[in-house]
Amino acid sequence: MATTLITGGTVVSATGRMQADVLIEGERIVAVLQPGSELLGTDLAASVDTVIDATGRYVIPGGIDAHTHMQLPFGGTSASDTFETGTRAAAWGGTTTIVDFAVQRHGERIQDGLAHWHELAAGQCAVDYGFHQIVGGVDAEALAALPGLIDEGITSFKMFMAYPGVFYADDAQILRAMQISARTGMLTMMHAENGPVIDVLAEQLVAEGKTDPYFHGIARAWQAEEEATHRAIMLADLTGAPLYVVHVSAKQAVRQLAWARDKGQNVFGETCPQYLYLSLEEQLGASSERWGAFEGAKWVCSTPLRSRAEGHQDHMWQALRTNDLQMVSTDHCPFCMTDQKELGRGDFRAIPNGIGSVEHRMDLMYQGVVTGEISLERWVELTSTTPARMFGMYGRKGVIQPGADADVVVYDPAGHTSIGYDKTHHMNMDHSAWEGFEIDGHVDTVIARGKVIVDAGQYLGRKGDGRFVRRGLSQYLI
Amino acid sequence: MATTLITGGTVVSATGRMQADVLIEGERIVAVLQPGSELLGTDLAASVDTVIDATGRYVIPGGIDAHTHMQLPFGGTSASDTFETGTRAAAWGGTTTIVDFAVQRHGERIQDGLAHWHELAAGQCAVDYGFHQIVGGVDAEALAALPGLIDEGITSFKMFMAYPGVFYADDAQILRAMQISARTGMLTMMHAENGPVIDVLAEQLVAEGKTDPYFHGIARAWQAEEEATHRAIMLADLTGAPLYVVHVSAKQAVRQLAWARDKGQNVFGETCPQYLYLSLEEQLGASSERWGAFEGAKWVCSTPLRSRAEGHQDHMWQALRTNDLQMVSTDHCPFCMTDQKELGRGDFRAIPNGIGSVEHRMDLMYQGVVTGEISLERWVELTSTTPARMFGMYGRKGVIQPGADADVVVYDPAGHTSIGYDKTHHMNMDHSAWEGFEIDGHVDTVIARGKVIVDAGQYLGRKGDGRFVRRGLSQYLI
Amino acid sequence: MATTLITGGTVVSATGRMQADVLIEGERIVAVLQPGSELLGTDLAASVDTVIDATGRYVIPGGIDAHTHMQLPFGGTSASDTFETGTRAAAWGGTTTIVDFAVQRHGERIQDGLAHWHELAAGQCAVDYGFHQIVGGVDAEALAALPGLIDEGITSFKMFMAYPGVFYADDAQILRAMQISARTGMLTMMHAENGPVIDVLAEQLVAEGKTDPYFHGIARAWQAEEEATHRAIMLADLTGAPLYVVHVSAKQAVRQLAWARDKGQNVFGETCPQYLYLSLEEQLGASSERWGAFEGAKWVCSTPLRSRAEGHQDHMWQALRTNDLQMVSTDHCPFCMTDQKELGRGDFRAIPNGIGSVEHRMDLMYQGVVTGEISLERWVELTSTTPARMFGMYGRKGVIQPGADADVVVYDPAGHTSIGYDKTHHMNMDHSAWEGFEIDGHVDTVIARGKVIVDAGQYLGRKGDGRFVRRGLSQYLI
Amino acid sequence: MATTLITGGTVVSATGRMQADVLIEGERIVAVLQPGSELLGTDLAASVDTVIDATGRYVIPGGIDAHTHMQLPFGGTSASDTFETGTRAAAWGGTTTIVDFAVQRHGERIQDGLAHWHELAAGQCAVDYGFHQIVGGVDAEALAALPGLIDEGITSFKMFMAYPGVFYADDAQILRAMQISARTGMLTMMHAENGPVIDVLAEQLVAEGKTDPYFHGIARAWQAEEEATHRAIMLADLTGAPLYVVHVSAKQAVRQLAWARDKGQNVFGETCPQYLYLSLEEQLGASSERWGAFEGAKWVCSTPLRSRAEGHQDHMWQALRTNDLQMVSTDHCPFCMTDQKELGRGDFRAIPNGIGSVEHRMDLMYQGVVTGEISLERWVELTSTTPARMFGMYGRKGVIQPGADADVVVYDPAGHTSIGYDKTHHMNMDHSAWEGFEIDGHVDTVIARGKVIVDAGQYLGRKGDGRFVRRGLSQYLI
Repeated sequence: MATTLITGGTVVSATGRMQADVLIEGERIVAVLQPGSELLGTDLAASVDTVIDATGRYVIPGGIDAHTHMQLPFGGTSASDTFETGTRAAAWGGTTTIVDFAVQRHGERIQDGLAHWHELAAGQCAVDYGFHQIVGGVDAEALAALPGLIDEGITSFKMFMAYPGVFYADDAQILRAMQISARTGMLTMMHAENGPVIDVLAEQLVAEGKTDPYFHGIARAWQAEEEATHRAIMLADLTGAPLYVVHVSAKQAVRQLAWARDKGQNVFGETCPQYLYLSLEEQLGASSERWGAFEGAKWVCSTPLRSRAEGHQDHMWQALRTNDLQMVSTDHCPFCMTDQKELGRGDFRAIPNGIGSVEHRMDLMYQGVVTGEISLERWVELTSTTPARMFGMYGRKGVIQPGADADVVVYDPAGHTSIGYDKTHHMNMDHSAWEGFEIDGHVDTVIARGKVIVDAGQYLGRKGDGRFVRRGLSQYLI
Repeated sequence: MATTLITGGTVVSATGRMQADVLIEGERIVAVLQPGSELLGTDLAASVDTVIDATGRYVIPGGIDAHTHMQLPFGGTSASDTFETGTRAAAWGGTTTIVDFAVQRHGERIQDGLAHWHELAAGQCAVDYGFHQIVGGVDAEALAALPGLIDEGITSFKMFMAYPGVFYADDAQILRAMQISARTGMLTMMHAENGPVIDVLAEQLVAEGKTDPYFHGIARAWQAEEEATHRAIMLADLTGAPLYVVHVSAKQAVRQLAWARDKGQNVFGETCPQYLYLSLEEQLGASSERWGAFEGAKWVCSTPLRSRAEGHQDHMWQALRTNDLQMVSTDHCPFCMTDQKELGRGDFRAIPNGIGSVEHRMDLMYQGVVTGEISLERWVELTSTTPARMFGMYGRKGVIQPGADADVVVYDPAGHTSIGYDKTHHMNMDHSAWEGFEIDGHVDTVIARGKVIVDAGQYLGRKGDGRFVRRGLSQYLI
Repeated sequence: MATTLITGGTVVSATGRMQADVLIEGERIVAVLQPGSELLGTDLAASVDTVIDATGRYVIPGGIDAHTHMQLPFGGTSASDTFETGTRAAAWGGTTTIVDFAVQRHGERIQDGLAHWHELAAGQCAVDYGFHQIVGGVDAEALAALPGLIDEGITSFKMFMAYPGVFYADDAQILRAMQISARTGMLTMMHAENGPVIDVLAEQLVAEGKTDPYFHGIARAWQAEEEATHRAIMLADLTGAPLYVVHVSAKQAVRQLAWARDKGQNVFGETCPQYLYLSLEEQLGASSERWGAFEGAKWVCSTPLRSRAEGHQDHMWQALRTNDLQMVSTDHCPFCMTDQKELGRGDFRAIPNGIGSVEHRMDLMYQGVVTGEISLERWVELTSTTPARMFGMYGRKGVIQPGADADVVVYDPAGHTSIGYDKTHHMNMDHSAWEGFEIDGHVDTVIARGKVIVDAGQYLGRKGDGRFVRRGLSQYLI
Repeated sequence: MATTLITGGTVVSATGRMQADVLIEGERIVAVLQPGSELLGTDLAASVDTVIDATGRYVIPGGIDAHTHMQLPFGGTSASDTFETGTRAAAWGGTTTIVDFAVQRHGERIQDGLAHWHELAAGQCAVDYGFHQIVGGVDAEALAALPGLIDEGITSFKMFMAYPGVFYADDAQILRAMQISARTGMLTMMHAENGPVIDVLAEQLVAEGKTDPYFHGIARAWQAEEEATHRAIMLADLTGAPLYVVHVSAKQAVRQLAWARDKGQNVFGETCPQYLYLSLEEQLGASSERWGAFEGAKWVCSTPLRSRAEGHQDHMWQALRTNDLQMVSTDHCPFCMTDQKELGRGDFRAIPNGIGSVEHRMDLMYQGVVTGEISLERWVELTSTTPARMFGMYGRKGVIQPGADADVVVYDPAGHTSIGYDKTHHMNMDHSAWEGFEIDGHVDTVIARGKVIVDAGQYLGRKGDGRFVRRGLSQYLI
């Protein structure tokens, strides 16, 4: 078995940091140890195959992005990253596990949808991957199939209160699925926006000639998110289901989550980098020679960017600090401008919804450490430890400890990362949603299950390095 | 250096658990390692001085009780545990660090009060100890002295909104002290009860002949706690001071804390086992042959026991789950019935306030794991990891990781502990406040800075094992 | 013109009371005057046709019941009171105006539904009547027709978040209708219960053999009401529509209303006597020789009776005091046990929903004055003045002042009323939902538009006394 | 007895309006009547001594200003309006009743303080006046004297949580006084600001050289108001006392009031025109040739003006609409700039606190009707009807109905009022705090107990017209 020793770094966990070396044998971490130990320390570096000197740098558990959509069919096209390109970009950015969404469509068997997703991913991935199950058609057969997913290592399923006619589940469907969630312990994930209401508003805007990308955000008013969030919480209260709300962006929705948690419900929320950094006002102002005001299409995602004047972004940071939100995922769902986003020229409703960020999440969140929004420990907690606990992978993932998969990132706080299409970009997109962002840190080395896959600006892994992760039930319930 | 290996146990942290061995050299943990490692594991057990087989048991960081009052002068008598007896009892119960309160009285110099406390504790303790500083006379000199305490390893100070004429600080005094807290990062600790109001109510009750111990809890109405909690929060808001509210017992006070945290303030709260398990109704019903209705005096503490009918106890557990409360300390302040509590026969106001629990906290909280109130991880977090982080000891204390002090407890979930005066009792009291409590678990082995001080029902330590811990600033601020 | 003088009574308004005489000429009040006036008082009693001596009694504006369902088709049968029988019962009980609900069904034109209701009521009524419009099929044609109702004197319309397949409106429909409400000032009335969720729960209960009337209330859980109330509020927030929630019964729903009002929304709520006095526990315990446990069917209404142990009833009274709820209506929707309620033997879903109370509202609410729940003034405000203001009738109705319709009740606080099927009952039902209620007061005399229609236990009116009231826009918006 | 008929006007009440004539005989209203009545109307105008044609104008109950401080000694000087000048100014502005504060100082008997106030006012006033009692020294004797005030027609007393060393009452004192309030039904009025905290902040600001009037508002931070408001509410909760918080200016304090009311407490709040119209920012910017930046001293009052950027003013208007605040008084406490305000040049702490507004309240609030902030009915309710009910005068005052004192104002919505020192000013001040305010309405005629005291720009009353009003207990408790 190949052995590696990471020496001299500061190992950061969700609760603190330590000066310690990390010993890897094969795919696992076997020890975390004090450099100067009598019994262990003397010539360990000489005994191992590889020594990585992490002096002055942070040694953190590999990032876990629990919300990606590789190759997702949406609006007549598909997300532009394949499992191959998307997971490789993830690796570049220090993310060593993704949890993608297998899709069951209305009229399809869950098992078939899942099998298809396994086919798409198998042998393609640069890093480990798990699946949540999207239930796009909540009928009796689908409900009956849900508990069986646990044995398949899929312990969470997602429904949509948005997108009528596509993924939309009505309240009766949600109730029945949540009853299964409560009974089995599977985590209910929810896209919480009132889709029927949004569709009316969008139709009215387009009828008024308001077709620019900006109006996507106007149609998806915060009230639609707040309302759906409250509704999901109350259905969870009624059934006893644990609830995880994806891509929270409105401060009023956060208040609903905080209220639910204060009264003791197992309700959780994630936000995404776009809701921390980007705003509706910038989208309104976006313009380029090539695309004009349609430039804003690159930031069309759902939930939408929110108004900075209303203070949503600041509130998201605060909620991350106070644990009213527990995680940061990307909702990585990339589309090119050409041939994809541009489908919605003249009608924002036809713009494929999504932003590509899987490569940049660890960096973007580290910048929050630099600016004082969150602590170093909270960075690790939000991006790795809690995702692992929330989705039943802790112990193997999300922590640097003996027995864990050797998914480790060496992060340099003295490094620098310039994000941009011509710079760090490895996602399969023709633009970057994060053009011009500068990060005061750098992902130096990425180890995935014991193998160095990124180092010194080189990608050393290969297609198929990543394997499917069978997840257990959530380890984060209160 | 003496070496110890704890093998075969389940190491539990605040975020999860692992099967791992813990290697100790001298006073420190030097490695946490996988049993079957090629490079390390083979004959380590053979190399160390001591092997502790923890198979089937939990290996946890030693408990930290951040709120004790050894030898505290109160009401014309003094708490009955000395640093010697109290810390030895702590050791028996799996607590390897206490943080006691050095007292500055009105008219006294802070430095002198502190020096006196150092004298009381030095060379007496079975386990490590730190100090918070009580500021009983908030005058210009005291305020000027506060920042200097940081260099003394004392990074938190406590004021009282209760006890007019004794420790009471008025709002102007609190404001000035909080300004220093905000400027220096020292943590403001607060006894949050409206003392002037309570004193009026108590006087009126006594005038009506309502003198039994039960009326202590009637006089200290929840409104007095809720009000003071809100006031402390708002003064903290005004100054920017971080605030830690001690011994929270009223659900309405918890709501104030939750509200403050939801809006992003650095506000924290601890509760104590008595507020989780005991109630005003039981105090009302307490009676014994020896003491009659005065039996309830054993449970006279401040804040008081609360009504179970009003649901305070359940709400405390919930708040521990949802992190509206962050820690469990004991407020260990023991008094004997004879000669001490009985001072208040005929007038509950003269009963020395306090309950002795330092020995039982780890067990009592573990029982909450057994009954499903909290998770195993949360148990460790509430009793050790968060106390370490909150009070600037993390890294040395509160975690099992290389470099940390080897404060380790081996806890047996298959063991049993019967609490009672004639049973597990080692505190210097003539009764137990926890008589008859049965715990489905047992503290088997206690290691303090590498030395086994309790094992197999034997106390193996000695007076003076414990050393003063110089604490840093809080590592828990959001 | 016939003239009447009511002398010697205490005239009660929403804000206070006065000793004054009320002079009526024809259908209107022409003066309120001080008994001993030099210029007016001397021989007025001698000049009028009728003198009513109200000494020692209250003179109040006639009751306005803003929520009745005469002859409503529901569940394959129809409410058992016709406009004739129902309004006569209302008159007996001191209610001189009702606002009933004209029904537009899915696929029907609003104008046609309304015309049908006019036909049902015209020439039949004992007291004046207005209409709200139920929009049971919210389509483009119906939406287009709504603003035209204002000129017809119908300024409020109601939608249902319950009853899928019958009256149910989905969120998109509600949004569009609320936009019209916001634009025109018409008041949106809402039955706020999540019908799809309730239907699932009901189906599951029946499948488990839980078919007794009691389970009606279990299926209609408070969460379903709270959720729908929040949703309605948020859609009103999004559109700017004024919102009036009917028959509020859950304390959690009241909290949502209070929250909305605290942030300045025009959101209102009514409750009904059944939610103040009756409970789910009583329904569970109900039994009779004739009906067995099915006896509880007499109290099957929607929203359902709530648990007294959870404190809903007390909270409704409090909300009436604090104006979190503004009105008390009956939701009068009577069904006989025989042939009607009994349709649901063996399946509570088939029990026609409704309770008959139009006759007893003034008495039942007066009993709240006797027991100290509300003040005498609040009684008048809740039952007459606010209904008039809320629904655009104030000035003609809801107040005793010159120019107002002479709708006046002389109420005797020294009288007594025993409610029961064999006693005061005039509703067309074969039982009373209020059997055994005793009221410490009595409706002595009822004057409707100047005509004494009830006096001394005699009904003196006749079919057709009541006329349609064309209402203006709400006069209660904040 | 002199008789007057007000004809043709729109009589406005708290709940609505009517076209009606008002007949006055002597000091009382004897009838409100319909113009065209057969029995009454024909030649009434010919029979009365005086006819006032109010066509096109509003006929409203005379204003009640429940918070004035005529001749109040404060900071080494006294409020510049005597009862003579102040009540005359009130009359000019349509206010026909004031409730002033009799002052008991520390060490003084309540009876003596009250007697002194009676001496100051007797025979001096232009309009009727009542007293609240300030309890400036809450000792056993004062507490014992309180209940006796009820028979003196004084049913409310005020304490101060501000002004240590002057009027300040500590929590123990407040508790004891509230117990009397709860037992007797007397209304507890509270100046809710944390004085000890404010004094520290003020001292620190002055020490930093921040002495301009603007810093008065910085020292009196909203937290100090919010905190004291919460504290007063909780002490009221503990004792059961009804609570009335004076001069609320911070939106956060309003939230506390709303919270208390939502849970059913008898808690009320007033605001003043200055908190609706003026702001801290304007005070910061104020400057004049004569006074420089000290010009802002004219707006030094307590509670202070609040920041417009923080939205307090808008929130006050909203709270008036939603009844989270129930009344608008002036806190009329006028001081001249010369010799009075200027005492605080160089130290804002020495500026006498107060603004003169008694003359302008009715106009300033009417302007809120013009701008759509409140309805016409709410204007009457806030300025007259609720003050009468709150303070036990309803029936005699606050309403136009038979038997009431003939305190009536004819207000012209087509008139105009320019406020300014050289214009409408009749208060004994050398400046106006409302300079430049333009009102789209005008007080045309003022009738006080049947006598026209202002008409057509003439003052027709005389010193001594006003009499002491013996008030009953509050008629507004919920």
